[in-house]
Amino acid sequence: MSQSTAHSPSLAQAEGLAQKSLAADPDRLLPADPGTRAIARDLLARVEDLPIISPHGHVEASMLELDTPFPDPATLLVTPDHYVTRLIHASGVPLERLRMGGTAVVEPRETWREFAKAWPLFDGTASGYWMRDSFEHVFGLTREVNAENADALFDELDAKLKSPAFRPRQLFKDFKIEVLATTDDPLDDLASHAAIASDPTFAGRVLPTFRPDAYIKFAAAGWAGRVQQLIETAGDGLDGYAGYIRAMENRRQYFVEHGAVSSDHGARTAQTLRLDESAATALFDKARRGEATAQDADVFEAHMMYQMARMAVSDGLVMTIHPGVFRNHHTDSFNKFGADTGHDIPFAVSYTEALRPMLEDFGTAPGFHFIPFTIDETVFSREIAPLAGFYPSVFIGAPWWFLDAPDAMLRFRSAVTETAGFSRSSGFIDDTRAFCSIPARHNTSRRIEASFLARVVAERRVSEARAHDIIVDIVDAAPRRAFKL
Amino acid sequence: MSQSTAHSPSLAQAEGLAQKSLAADPDRLLPADPGTRAIARDLLARVEDLPIISPHGHVEASMLELDTPFPDPATLLVTPDHYVTRLIHASGVPLERLRMGGTAVVEPRETWREFAKAWPLFDGTASGYWMRDSFEHVFGLTREVNAENADALFDELDAKLKSPAFRPRQLFKDFKIEVLATTDDPLDDLASHAAIASDPTFAGRVLPTFRPDAYIKFAAAGWAGRVQQLIETAGDGLDGYAGYIRAMENRRQYFVEHGAVSSDHGARTAQTLRLDESAATALFDKARRGEATAQDADVFEAHMMYQMARMAVSDGLVMTIHPGVFRNHHTDSFNKFGADTGHDIPFAVSYTEALRPMLEDFGTAPGFHFIPFTIDETVFSREIAPLAGFYPSVFIGAPWWFLDAPDAMLRFRSAVTETAGFSRSSGFIDDTRAFCSIPARHNTSRRIEASFLARVVAERRVSEARAHDIIVDIVDAAPRRAFKL
Amino acid sequence: MSQSTAHSPSLAQAEGLAQKSLAADPDRLLPADPGTRAIARDLLARVEDLPIISPHGHVEASMLELDTPFPDPATLLVTPDHYVTRLIHASGVPLERLRMGGTAVVEPRETWREFAKAWPLFDGTASGYWMRDSFEHVFGLTREVNAENADALFDELDAKLKSPAFRPRQLFKDFKIEVLATTDDPLDDLASHAAIASDPTFAGRVLPTFRPDAYIKFAAAGWAGRVQQLIETAGDGLDGYAGYIRAMENRRQYFVEHGAVSSDHGARTAQTLRLDESAATALFDKARRGEATAQDADVFEAHMMYQMARMAVSDGLVMTIHPGVFRNHHTDSFNKFGADTGHDIPFAVSYTEALRPMLEDFGTAPGFHFIPFTIDETVFSREIAPLAGFYPSVFIGAPWWFLDAPDAMLRFRSAVTETAGFSRSSGFIDDTRAFCSIPARHNTSRRIEASFLARVVAERRVSEARAHDIIVDIVDAAPRRAFKL
Repeated sequence: MSQSTAHSPSLAQAEGLAQKSLAADPDRLLPADPGTRAIARDLLARVEDLPIISPHGHVEASMLELDTPFPDPATLLVTPDHYVTRLIHASGVPLERLRMGGTAVVEPRETWREFAKAWPLFDGTASGYWMRDSFEHVFGLTREVNAENADALFDELDAKLKSPAFRPRQLFKDFKIEVLATTDDPLDDLASHAAIASDPTFAGRVLPTFRPDAYIKFAAAGWAGRVQQLIETAGDGLDGYAGYIRAMENRRQYFVEHGAVSSDHGARTAQTLRLDESAATALFDKARRGEATAQDADVFEAHMMYQMARMAVSDGLVMTIHPGVFRNHHTDSFNKFGADTGHDIPFAVSYTEALRPMLEDFGTAPGFHFIPFTIDETVFSREIAPLAGFYPSVFIGAPWWFLDAPDAMLRFRSAVTETAGFSRSSGFIDDTRAFCSIPARHNTSRRIEASFLARVVAERRVSEARAHDIIVDIVDAAPRRAFKL
Repeated sequence: MSQSTAHSPSLAQAEGLAQKSLAADPDRLLPADPGTRAIARDLLARVEDLPIISPHGHVEASMLELDTPFPDPATLLVTPDHYVTRLIHASGVPLERLRMGGTAVVEPRETWREFAKAWPLFDGTASGYWMRDSFEHVFGLTREVNAENADALFDELDAKLKSPAFRPRQLFKDFKIEVLATTDDPLDDLASHAAIASDPTFAGRVLPTFRPDAYIKFAAAGWAGRVQQLIETAGDGLDGYAGYIRAMENRRQYFVEHGAVSSDHGARTAQTLRLDESAATALFDKARRGEATAQDADVFEAHMMYQMARMAVSDGLVMTIHPGVFRNHHTDSFNKFGADTGHDIPFAVSYTEALRPMLEDFGTAPGFHFIPFTIDETVFSREIAPLAGFYPSVFIGAPWWFLDAPDAMLRFRSAVTETAGFSRSSGFIDDTRAFCSIPARHNTSRRIEASFLARVVAERRVSEARAHDIIVDIVDAAPRRAFKL
Repeated sequence: MSQSTAHSPSLAQAEGLAQKSLAADPDRLLPADPGTRAIARDLLARVEDLPIISPHGHVEASMLELDTPFPDPATLLVTPDHYVTRLIHASGVPLERLRMGGTAVVEPRETWREFAKAWPLFDGTASGYWMRDSFEHVFGLTREVNAENADALFDELDAKLKSPAFRPRQLFKDFKIEVLATTDDPLDDLASHAAIASDPTFAGRVLPTFRPDAYIKFAAAGWAGRVQQLIETAGDGLDGYAGYIRAMENRRQYFVEHGAVSSDHGARTAQTLRLDESAATALFDKARRGEATAQDADVFEAHMMYQMARMAVSDGLVMTIHPGVFRNHHTDSFNKFGADTGHDIPFAVSYTEALRPMLEDFGTAPGFHFIPFTIDETVFSREIAPLAGFYPSVFIGAPWWFLDAPDAMLRFRSAVTETAGFSRSSGFIDDTRAFCSIPARHNTSRRIEASFLARVVAERRVSEARAHDIIVDIVDAAPRRAFKL
């Protein structure tokens, strides 16, 4: 037994920690092997306190402009987070009880109770890590989340959220965020971004991102009206397809002038295509007449991905794509609760042939940066790492959405590093609208990068000295390099 | 050197175990890292002796009804187990020598000798683990399996198999099986199940499973005659497609009344489709005239998967599917030895779009349980976990067939947990006709669940207290919940 | 702290090694867990010094026949190695500066400087491991590679490469190469191979490999002329398709007589197809008229894969395929620098249905050996291991190209072993034209095989005694068995 104890540091440690929360454990998410863990600790120490660079996400600029106080805990932390609501829904709770899609059949406190009851479901999930970390490190909760504590926690959080210490600008500062990108409609006037930029009392950079999906996808609700408005607003008097392209160019330029560094595209697939102008015009006109088929929409979207790359070569915006998601899988839920309500489901995608028309023409264009994300893990080793290991324009998008979690991140590094090394990736992307989870997400990523590097150091593949440089490069230099910050 | 020994507990241990078999090692299949292993031991202790719940498998109910003595070791353990025969065949032994497909060109003892000679091929395979465990823990063998020992082992096993201690009912009790599901033809009268259920001397539950593949696949040998018989037997006097659907409903009901909790479907793909009645009738009639194409068969099968889900919503049977297998890949072997002879080979499948027609209509239907299995691992993180993390009806099928093995199980948990947590999976499925391997299979699964959980505990992602609850939930509550036991 | 140190051997070790290079570390690439590492060391010791068997690669036989001195370091180690040049290119260096495609806009020394500057990019990559190992163990470099050392290292290497100790034949002997296969054009007269075979002063076996891609792919540049020459040279006076098939058979026979053991095929996909003679003839004639479509080319290639298997059954050549690579992805680079310049990019492939026509007819043919390679990892567990676990003719191709790296090799063993055990794989393939990297590549493979086996021993899945046999079988017997050496 004494021998067994001697060889059981983790267990011994675990016993010592019986009263401590996981979030309080300085070794959380680090590898179990003691030697590897020691290396990981050392690597983590070099980056844990670096500022946060968030070049892609979904926080609203107006929230930071106006320093709007946050709402109650359920409305802040549960209802808008489809990572969280989806798993509660899977356990049998109707989305109405989570006040989704503007429903208000129950009070926020009732929604919070549902969350507290469902909390054990989140063990082992990415959302679970982030929330646990935020509860402890952002909100300073000391009680466990459970059905019994639900009301007390709601009240404690609610009180904190009403205090000045929990206003967005204060948290932005406390979180040490240096850059935060938002995601914006091409016709957004970016007034909030301008106000923030010219506000001497606010030190951080809040950058817009050009997201034209709803102007490109024929099937998007309101496409025709939106396109009409785009052409009228920014088409330089041109009409039809020519005005549409011109307006896209002009609005991208407007975004550049307001600090944007990237455009973002949720295309259905990774397909790119170079149509000649007459073919593109014909498709565009067909769609405006309401006659386009689903295949027409795919072809036009592929063509517009090519066009976006062409524009990027000249205006310098970094181009990010994240294809391969079946949006709004459950129509009934979509009709009742709207988009982004937890039933966007990935499917298999391919990049090698799909991206070729675009990479043929722009893959080696000076200054062009293209970042493919995926939630189909199979393409990491097969397609994306090989592409990024040749084309100077291609940077490997960090694990995203369902893959933005410890094990998936470790699989990602294992899949891409042996082909493309450590220099070709985008850096961490939090992609979140959950502002309060931002530090937890970046911290998770830093711990996992330290864990992966610690393993390759422990396995004598990379020297400790180089690992020291590499982790700083991954965490800090990579996003600045990929996103031109 | 002393330092090296001090840091080499596994090796030290291994030396101490030199005389012990692997199956005797209490730490078999547990993680190598001493700290993690200690946690795994502790977790395993909480579930190792729980009763066996086997909600899907291929044991014959009549064997338990009649308590039929087992045949000789080759006929019991080698010939019917296509996991075993396939690898012997790959090494160059003709299937005739394994007495497959009713061939009897050699004596069982000769087949056993082939197995003993081939035994080293099974190192590292799932079948190897199970057989080694069964040999030691079920049959109490102490000698190594090898060509020299073959005859002696045959005789030793044969003698044991003739003894009362090795009759099916005694083993059922010794194995601590609480529930065992069989797989049955829709027209089976389920007399064996009824006899067992009404036998006060037999404590276990033996449940039928409704498996209508041969009545749905146009290309199944004898489809037309079988369908005719189905309609006549249970069609309530209706004819054609209407009688066919009615008969399916009636036979499902008959199964429910005899204790069935699930229907099982080996569809070619995961496709579901809602045809209107006239289209379905037309296809059905075309097939009865012998004119259906392969594509017609696929469309009708997709439609029937939709229909089975519809029926499940009303009769409550859990619906399990396991698509993506090319059956009888080698026609010559199929012609000589029949189906299930080792050349069913997986191919890529997709679920996200394929299941949508069915999930659109029934995905949130109260009480509906749908369990997709796969042997295409790529869908675990990409499709199945995301689906099960939203739809209350979808439970993630445990790793199945070629994936029912330690490393594959670990990859499975790593792939699904971060998206769907621990609450959305089906629980372990042994899916076996090899009755004597059942304890080894469940024990393997429990050891691997303990190993995965021990790692996330050691990496400080899940607390030890929660892991204690989770492992009991995974092993015991999950199959009861998913299969409504 | 003392406890933490006691459990941190890796870190302690790492500190002790601060002055040592990674390549000098006897534990390089071995697992971090001390117990597992000790087992791995022991396993590695059994195979580390075994002779090298290289049944597939791209070294030129004439180099060994003539014992040609190597050129300068850049021309030897950088310019021709597209693993190396691709990552330098991705970092922004034009391929001209690497003297690719016959360009000589800079001196070799300048190319070497680019390489030295880019060296940190290779941390964590397969190429990085091999080069570091070669620098230390083949060239005896003691200085680090970096921009400052670039010229000195160039001079040091250049001097060594001019010395007799670095002539190909001496290195062949020093590397302990027993068998080395080259890759050859079907019309090659194999004079170099004959000269080597009849040279009593050269002990190794240098075997040709029949690689007819350029005679099968309609779209290959110069296909028609090449085919005409093939028919005239070896068609026994027959013309057209009949002469073509006869010539293939004759040239295969010529290769067999010159020691060849295998044919190798870079088909676009894994598709096989049995066309009747008139259909094949029609396609062939269409292609000779320059009228074939891309689909015609695919069909004919699939047919020829079937034909190659048919010929293999009678002449005994082992058949290897490696489909699933989009060759020359970036046309502009191809036009300027030619093929094999770093932009061959993998895509998804499937084998189960594609190989069926061929396996139906030849899968159990006595003596037929078929080795599918892949760089789409998803097929390892899903398709290739299941196929090789049934068909005696199918051997699992070792991880190849982008997958020929430590983590990918570990994933490979994890993916295939539980289904097919350790006996069904091809043995390691270095597939390289970088002669000086051959020992490093084989050593890497041996270390990883030891690491994988050590883990399954440490996890008490395979006994240490069996692991001792298995590693020798994997490293030494497997390639001899699969390639009939």
